[in-house]
Amino acid sequence: MTLRKTLMVSAAAMLVPNLVLAQDAEFASLADTQFIFNTLLFLIGGFLVFWMAAGFAMLEAGLVRSKNVTTQLTKNIALFGIAAIMYWLVGYNIMYPGDGNWLIQDVLGAFGTKDIKTDIDAGGYSNASDFFFQLMFCATTASIVSGTLAERVRLWPFIAFVALLTGVIYPIGASWQWGGGFLSQMGFSDFAGSTLVHVAGGFAALAGAIILGPRIGKYKNGRVIPMPGSNLALATLGTFILWMGWFGFNGASQLAMGTIEDADAIAQIFANTNMAAAAGAIAAMIMTQLLYKKVDLTMVLNGALAGLVSITAGPLDPTLFGALWIGAVGGVIVVFAIPFLDKLKIDDVVGAIPVHLLAGLWGTLAVPFYTDGTSFGTQFIGFAAVGGFVFVVSFIAFTILKGVVGIRVSEEAEINGLDMSELGMEAYPEFSKG
Amino acid sequence: MTLRKTLMVSAAAMLVPNLVLAQDAEFASLADTQFIFNTLLFLIGGFLVFWMAAGFAMLEAGLVRSKNVTTQLTKNIALFGIAAIMYWLVGYNIMYPGDGNWLIQDVLGAFGTKDIKTDIDAGGYSNASDFFFQLMFCATTASIVSGTLAERVRLWPFIAFVALLTGVIYPIGASWQWGGGFLSQMGFSDFAGSTLVHVAGGFAALAGAIILGPRIGKYKNGRVIPMPGSNLALATLGTFILWMGWFGFNGASQLAMGTIEDADAIAQIFANTNMAAAAGAIAAMIMTQLLYKKVDLTMVLNGALAGLVSITAGPLDPTLFGALWIGAVGGVIVVFAIPFLDKLKIDDVVGAIPVHLLAGLWGTLAVPFYTDGTSFGTQFIGFAAVGGFVFVVSFIAFTILKGVVGIRVSEEAEINGLDMSELGMEAYPEFSKG
Amino acid sequence: MTLRKTLMVSAAAMLVPNLVLAQDAEFASLADTQFIFNTLLFLIGGFLVFWMAAGFAMLEAGLVRSKNVTTQLTKNIALFGIAAIMYWLVGYNIMYPGDGNWLIQDVLGAFGTKDIKTDIDAGGYSNASDFFFQLMFCATTASIVSGTLAERVRLWPFIAFVALLTGVIYPIGASWQWGGGFLSQMGFSDFAGSTLVHVAGGFAALAGAIILGPRIGKYKNGRVIPMPGSNLALATLGTFILWMGWFGFNGASQLAMGTIEDADAIAQIFANTNMAAAAGAIAAMIMTQLLYKKVDLTMVLNGALAGLVSITAGPLDPTLFGALWIGAVGGVIVVFAIPFLDKLKIDDVVGAIPVHLLAGLWGTLAVPFYTDGTSFGTQFIGFAAVGGFVFVVSFIAFTILKGVVGIRVSEEAEINGLDMSELGMEAYPEFSKG
Repeated sequence: MTLRKTLMVSAAAMLVPNLVLAQDAEFASLADTQFIFNTLLFLIGGFLVFWMAAGFAMLEAGLVRSKNVTTQLTKNIALFGIAAIMYWLVGYNIMYPGDGNWLIQDVLGAFGTKDIKTDIDAGGYSNASDFFFQLMFCATTASIVSGTLAERVRLWPFIAFVALLTGVIYPIGASWQWGGGFLSQMGFSDFAGSTLVHVAGGFAALAGAIILGPRIGKYKNGRVIPMPGSNLALATLGTFILWMGWFGFNGASQLAMGTIEDADAIAQIFANTNMAAAAGAIAAMIMTQLLYKKVDLTMVLNGALAGLVSITAGPLDPTLFGALWIGAVGGVIVVFAIPFLDKLKIDDVVGAIPVHLLAGLWGTLAVPFYTDGTSFGTQFIGFAAVGGFVFVVSFIAFTILKGVVGIRVSEEAEINGLDMSELGMEAYPEFSKG
Repeated sequence: MTLRKTLMVSAAAMLVPNLVLAQDAEFASLADTQFIFNTLLFLIGGFLVFWMAAGFAMLEAGLVRSKNVTTQLTKNIALFGIAAIMYWLVGYNIMYPGDGNWLIQDVLGAFGTKDIKTDIDAGGYSNASDFFFQLMFCATTASIVSGTLAERVRLWPFIAFVALLTGVIYPIGASWQWGGGFLSQMGFSDFAGSTLVHVAGGFAALAGAIILGPRIGKYKNGRVIPMPGSNLALATLGTFILWMGWFGFNGASQLAMGTIEDADAIAQIFANTNMAAAAGAIAAMIMTQLLYKKVDLTMVLNGALAGLVSITAGPLDPTLFGALWIGAVGGVIVVFAIPFLDKLKIDDVVGAIPVHLLAGLWGTLAVPFYTDGTSFGTQFIGFAAVGGFVFVVSFIAFTILKGVVGIRVSEEAEINGLDMSELGMEAYPEFSKG
Repeated sequence: MTLRKTLMVSAAAMLVPNLVLAQDAEFASLADTQFIFNTLLFLIGGFLVFWMAAGFAMLEAGLVRSKNVTTQLTKNIALFGIAAIMYWLVGYNIMYPGDGNWLIQDVLGAFGTKDIKTDIDAGGYSNASDFFFQLMFCATTASIVSGTLAERVRLWPFIAFVALLTGVIYPIGASWQWGGGFLSQMGFSDFAGSTLVHVAGGFAALAGAIILGPRIGKYKNGRVIPMPGSNLALATLGTFILWMGWFGFNGASQLAMGTIEDADAIAQIFANTNMAAAAGAIAAMIMTQLLYKKVDLTMVLNGALAGLVSITAGPLDPTLFGALWIGAVGGVIVVFAIPFLDKLKIDDVVGAIPVHLLAGLWGTLAVPFYTDGTSFGTQFIGFAAVGGFVFVVSFIAFTILKGVVGIRVSEEAEINGLDMSELGMEAYPEFSKG
């Protein structure tokens, strides 16, 4: 654009001197328009992904037992707050090393300096909008973990892990792809983060679940004891919120809205994202009817979420039919994986590992069906690299936390519920328990 | 625009050769900008109308008794999933016959072909964004039905009806107006679907309610037995969600945002939509105080919704005062219609028939007060044509479903609640029932 | 822009006659684009601030006891409806006196006239979008009051006060700054309304709380009796909703999105708003751990809200570090102010006075740390002027209401709960109370 403009101006300037100014103004304005559209995309996408934090909070509050609801809500709002601070303090710098160090720039020069500089070229965007948007992905990774570890992990050690995850672990993994690191150079493709966000969160959850161990009474004499969620209306609300937020998660990962091509791409991503979620929900509904002769609402909810995770690695290129079958496979995976995890005695309270880790793996591997220049091998390497890294570091971190401060509440506290024992505050103090 | 550009270029090209390129770039960019705005409108409108699916789920989950909440939630998420698939598979093609057949194009040529082509003229938009937006209206129609038939209809037969409604019935009715069919040629006016969506959904619900019959114990010895909703906080949340989503429902039905006139129109629609909802709520509040000496929250909620439905046929042309009285009349209608339906022993669990069918009729007939070129006669013909068609086909469909597979749960199952008898999963398993 | 265009056209017209048309079209289009962006900002901001009404409803429904939930929900939806009508009828005219009188223009000339005229200059916006956006701020002021006065104020007298507050009191106070009144001429700075909305709402709440008196049994023998909220999941949902809506509240208060500078400013506001909320939540979490050895979820929620209120007076100029400490101080204020109010026996059911009045004061005073041309003195004058005015008028209004119709329910009604005694409708009729 710049080049073309220069040529034009020099030609026109010879004939129509005053026109030069006008042309300048117009070209500037067209670049402005792109800048505004791009920034707006990040802001709309950002508040939609923010909204997912509420979705996780409601989903998890609905799927834990009522004696642990206050604690689960507290963890969810706290993890978002910690993520917002840690990602600003260190995470964003680690993830995008070229953007300069804010810790020095902003904290040390705290008063009077603007911390976020802005790129006003054509195709540019406000850096603050990018930060806002990227932060929400970081927080999402932490939200995944809180559900798996619910009903037994202590509040402050969990918060400490979240600080590490959002400040360091997630940003390092994500930098390998979105920061221009070795995975992006290998040709790995992960459009909106099936691996970078969901697999990462899922492996952090898995590491925590292994070290924490299952809830008391969950596995008894070789049987799995159901511990039904206390409020399925909240869980359903949470799923709808996540579904809505995912339009921002995937759609705004197009990263630009200033051209016809970008706007059209975003629209296709919205349509595909919706189709994958629908297909995941319906697939899980049909599977539970076939397997258990009854539809299982929590499976349907997790099926929708698995459909969403599955399409996240490549939401742009598939046809709607592609989105349908990719999402449906995600839904089926969840129906089989949730009981399978129980066989391994890995106690994942809300099913986050099947939904995020396994459907994330599936989504990552499904990219080559529709996206040119990708391969199953490279996709698997990306999955294994990020997943392995997150798992190992998380495992070490949880082990250290366990050894140093302890990560699990006492047996008595767990039986009485974390709300009374840790926080002294019930979520539903007036409703007597059956 | 195209014509004007051609003239200009030919004139300018004689003098300033390089300028031609520049002018081309600018005009293209202005068309781009319109395309992006239009597409963005569909996407924002689309996610807001998507959000209405959550609103219906919460409203209905709050207005049924706790023993049926899981089932109601399941129906709501399932109907959305089915709508997403059926509208893609057949509905969209039926509704917009000129757009080519996706079933062949997309499913048969599933791998490697893009299914949605895009119109890049000035005033154009991404077809995927249009599909995404239109789909949400189709799903809304189904959401209306689930509330009326709650607490007694079997899950899978209901899903089968939803498949028919969203794949065939709604698209045929909507094609008569929005697909360029005979109603649009007659001069029928239904801006965002008071008739095409709300009356259609309301008549499908009415047909189902008649064939299903009332809940056990609802009408006893000539008296109407109240069966209060289990969670009015959820019902209120659902109403707020629907109110919010309605800005997208009505506002994005302007279908374009690329000119000052369109943007201004959308803003007026937002303001009118909000005013009609407010007026409907306040009118119902005052009416229940006058009639019953007590404000009835569920009536206030339905009053707000009736206000929204009432303004939907013509949200652009009325003044704010027009929106106020049109919405208020909608609220008053609901207060009188809900007990009237009970007199007819038509058991509509959430009041969807008064809110959607009757306020939809009112809204359709109110259009000529403010919109030139419309007439009460033509408006009534539109209402009667769509309503009659949907009612007859739905009646036949429910009758066949009743005869072939049965549509109502057993008496025992209904008394015990559908959650335990159909799904084996309670929504609030720990809260003891009073 | 206009001037520059004229110069350019006159020069170009001499050489390239047909080009004039083209240039006209382009400049018109650039102005159009700005108009559309500005209008879109108001609409997105408006529906986000609308959503805050749902947030207040959920927050308050979650923090009252279950016997008062239906009443609290009714008050919240009713106050929004009343605000929508009163602000249209008189409030907007009082607040922006230059815009002409709608009461005459719209009501008297009700049929056939458009009430909202639109400014199509460059930098313009749809007046309807401005009305829609401003209305939401007016309604927010009323939402603040309903929480404080919960569980004892009578429905209709409360509604009468809301009519006065939204029709007259708020608009007069806001006109002093946003309507171009004496505070704006003094150099008072209140970007999105820490004082004009939150302090105003807080003082109205304070006046009401003093005149109403505390709930029965709240202060007994010098002790404060806890009356825990009935549903902390709803309260947390409400907080997330408010947090989300605040992006619109603060971001769209930039009032324009048609230039790079404006878009960048909005992005910085989003990032700062989020940071302040996060810091408020985490600060309250740490403080309650230190003070009480237990994290208090309701304090964390109020801490997040206090962070949001604190940054509202100046969300643009601080660095992210600035937003962090300003928000954190807000969170700390709440932790100390809530028990302090109880010492004064001012019974504020949801903590709205600390969150809105005190953090609003803090936010107003914090502006000069980052915004040039502001002073603590002028900021305090703005706070005192608006706060004093609202307090005095509200105090008089509540006193008159108390004398003439009574504002408090009977002792028996309060003990039995307002839901059964005032409305005859329980929010959770099936859940037995512990």
